[in-house]
Amino acid sequence: MRGTVIYGPRDIRFEERPDPQIIEPTDAIIRTSATCVCGSDLWPYRGVDPVTEPRPIGHEYCGIVEEVGSAVRNIKPGQFVVGSFFSSDNTCPICQAGYQSRCVRGEFACPTGGQAPYLRVPLADGTLVATPYMPSDDLIPSLLAASDVLGTGWFAADAANVRPGSTAAIVGDGAVGLCAVIAAKQMGAERIIMMSRNVSRAALAREFGATDIVEERGDEGVARIKEMTGGLGAHSLVEAVGTQESMMQAIRSTRAGGHVGFVGVSHDVEIPGLELFYSEVHLLGGPAPVRRFLPELIDLIWNRQIDPGKVFDLRLPLEQVAEGYRAMDERRAIKALLMP
Amino acid sequence: MRGTVIYGPRDIRFEERPDPQIIEPTDAIIRTSATCVCGSDLWPYRGVDPVTEPRPIGHEYCGIVEEVGSAVRNIKPGQFVVGSFFSSDNTCPICQAGYQSRCVRGEFACPTGGQAPYLRVPLADGTLVATPYMPSDDLIPSLLAASDVLGTGWFAADAANVRPGSTAAIVGDGAVGLCAVIAAKQMGAERIIMMSRNVSRAALAREFGATDIVEERGDEGVARIKEMTGGLGAHSLVEAVGTQESMMQAIRSTRAGGHVGFVGVSHDVEIPGLELFYSEVHLLGGPAPVRRFLPELIDLIWNRQIDPGKVFDLRLPLEQVAEGYRAMDERRAIKALLMP
Repeated sequence: MRGTVIYGPRDIRFEERPDPQIIEPTDAIIRTSATCVCGSDLWPYRGVDPVTEPRPIGHEYCGIVEEVGSAVRNIKPGQFVVGSFFSSDNTCPICQAGYQSRCVRGEFACPTGGQAPYLRVPLADGTLVATPYMPSDDLIPSLLAASDVLGTGWFAADAANVRPGSTAAIVGDGAVGLCAVIAAKQMGAERIIMMSRNVSRAALAREFGATDIVEERGDEGVARIKEMTGGLGAHSLVEAVGTQESMMQAIRSTRAGGHVGFVGVSHDVEIPGLELFYSEVHLLGGPAPVRRFLPELIDLIWNRQIDPGKVFDLRLPLEQVAEGYRAMDERRAIKALLMP
Repeated sequence: MRGTVIYGPRDIRFEERPDPQIIEPTDAIIRTSATCVCGSDLWPYRGVDPVTEPRPIGHEYCGIVEEVGSAVRNIKPGQFVVGSFFSSDNTCPICQAGYQSRCVRGEFACPTGGQAPYLRVPLADGTLVATPYMPSDDLIPSLLAASDVLGTGWFAADAANVRPGSTAAIVGDGAVGLCAVIAAKQMGAERIIMMSRNVSRAALAREFGATDIVEERGDEGVARIKEMTGGLGAHSLVEAVGTQESMMQAIRSTRAGGHVGFVGVSHDVEIPGLELFYSEVHLLGGPAPVRRFLPELIDLIWNRQIDPGKVFDLRLPLEQVAEGYRAMDERRAIKALLMP
């Protein structure tokens, strides 16, 4: 097959690769129905995370099971499945507590690269969730979104403890932040504030349920949120960027006793202990345990209650994957869908 | 009256002070039955927190209401009361959410100094909780403990989400850490690990309910906790010191999805964002909203289900307050009780 390999900053190639094979008896081979470029793929693309040698890339996927290993019990060839970017046995104490992204037996779910027509997924039974039957084509972008971007936005809103009637604010108008709007809406937030100065992203945020758009950033953004919440700050803050500024903006915009859910991979972030102490906010972040939410997310998509596939505003044949990276890097696209 | 004033590092004086007076109609004047020295009083005593001018000190108190302002409705002269170190109206949205230490109308509860025979407490109705009737003398140390050290240990265990059957570990064998053991026991923790290399403190921890004592610190302490918990880490960590080492020890000893409650006032602590991200632990700390817990704590003490007064291993006449500071500074005493 041909698959995507990153060679270095801004060097994405679609090239001949070995066909994935079953290695462990718990593996499955998936024929990809759709894949995409993740905001986190842009960290190595931009050279922020070093690329020491060429490696396959991509970790969002959905598709049809081609083959399973001898120890796989629940997942069957022919099923349409969605999986997380991190494999999990879904039975260890950490998984049982809902933190499948930190499964004791888990590993990266796409060792052969997700931006490819076929991939090997470890721990298939614990990682993959099958749809009720074969989805119609129009559901595929949303099902793909569930595998990371929606699951991550969902976890962020859950970590930020969004509750019926509460005020939630989202720092970061990328695809994850936009999906956090969907989540906050489903979780019953009364007021959903998206921090954005991008007209098309703000419009999509409104479509997903944002009630307010705030253009100010940093200290001014904090002041604006305080002003909108009687001086208290929001109950729930989603941080979906991963910089010092966005983290501090999120913490400072939250009322005492409120919650910050952070899912931007923190780069060079240092949280001052004394400020956090006196902020008295709950802080929880990390790689999203997407697997915890997958059954519910698939159900909501299947019943057409949410349409996260709208975050894909660029659709390309998989072989044009490099253009997908370029478009996202230049912020010409929110998120690029890749069709094998 | 004579009251306690801090003049600078290691300079505590017991000297003539004006008698506290009602200033706001929501104030009360309390005749102190007992007061004490707090671990946080040692920060200015040791010169870590600067003392720019002489100021009254002390913020733990219980006693009899002498007089109330014209707007006080529930608290009556003659009642025995316990209050928090931070005043609260107990009606604002932040108080209602349980974060009375961040009340929008709140202020330091002992503006006239708590280590004194009389004190003025603002927002008396929201800050003070009366006991059912006059307590017997032997209950007074425990009731005093409720005003801060027990309330703070309790909040730490609550913030660390201690649950029936869980494993809790406590970093910090001072009075707050020891009270966190009481809290963890009451909250149903199956295993309570106290990090201590002090024989008498470890013994008191065991008396309060600790099941294990770990002497190792830092990375070795983390390794020991991991070893004791099947490699996963504890569910709940209490951080009751306030240094970089103790904070990182707490975070690293916690399993993914677990909770750290930190109540040591963080001095020069910087939490690395990326490590916190991949730790995937819940973090909550700050000045304890003692008022939230006071009714329950008073009830447990009144019914002799807990005996936090045991943390006072030195009892002095109030006028010998300077010796109380010295004894705690030199770790000759866990906590000094001062009797007016």
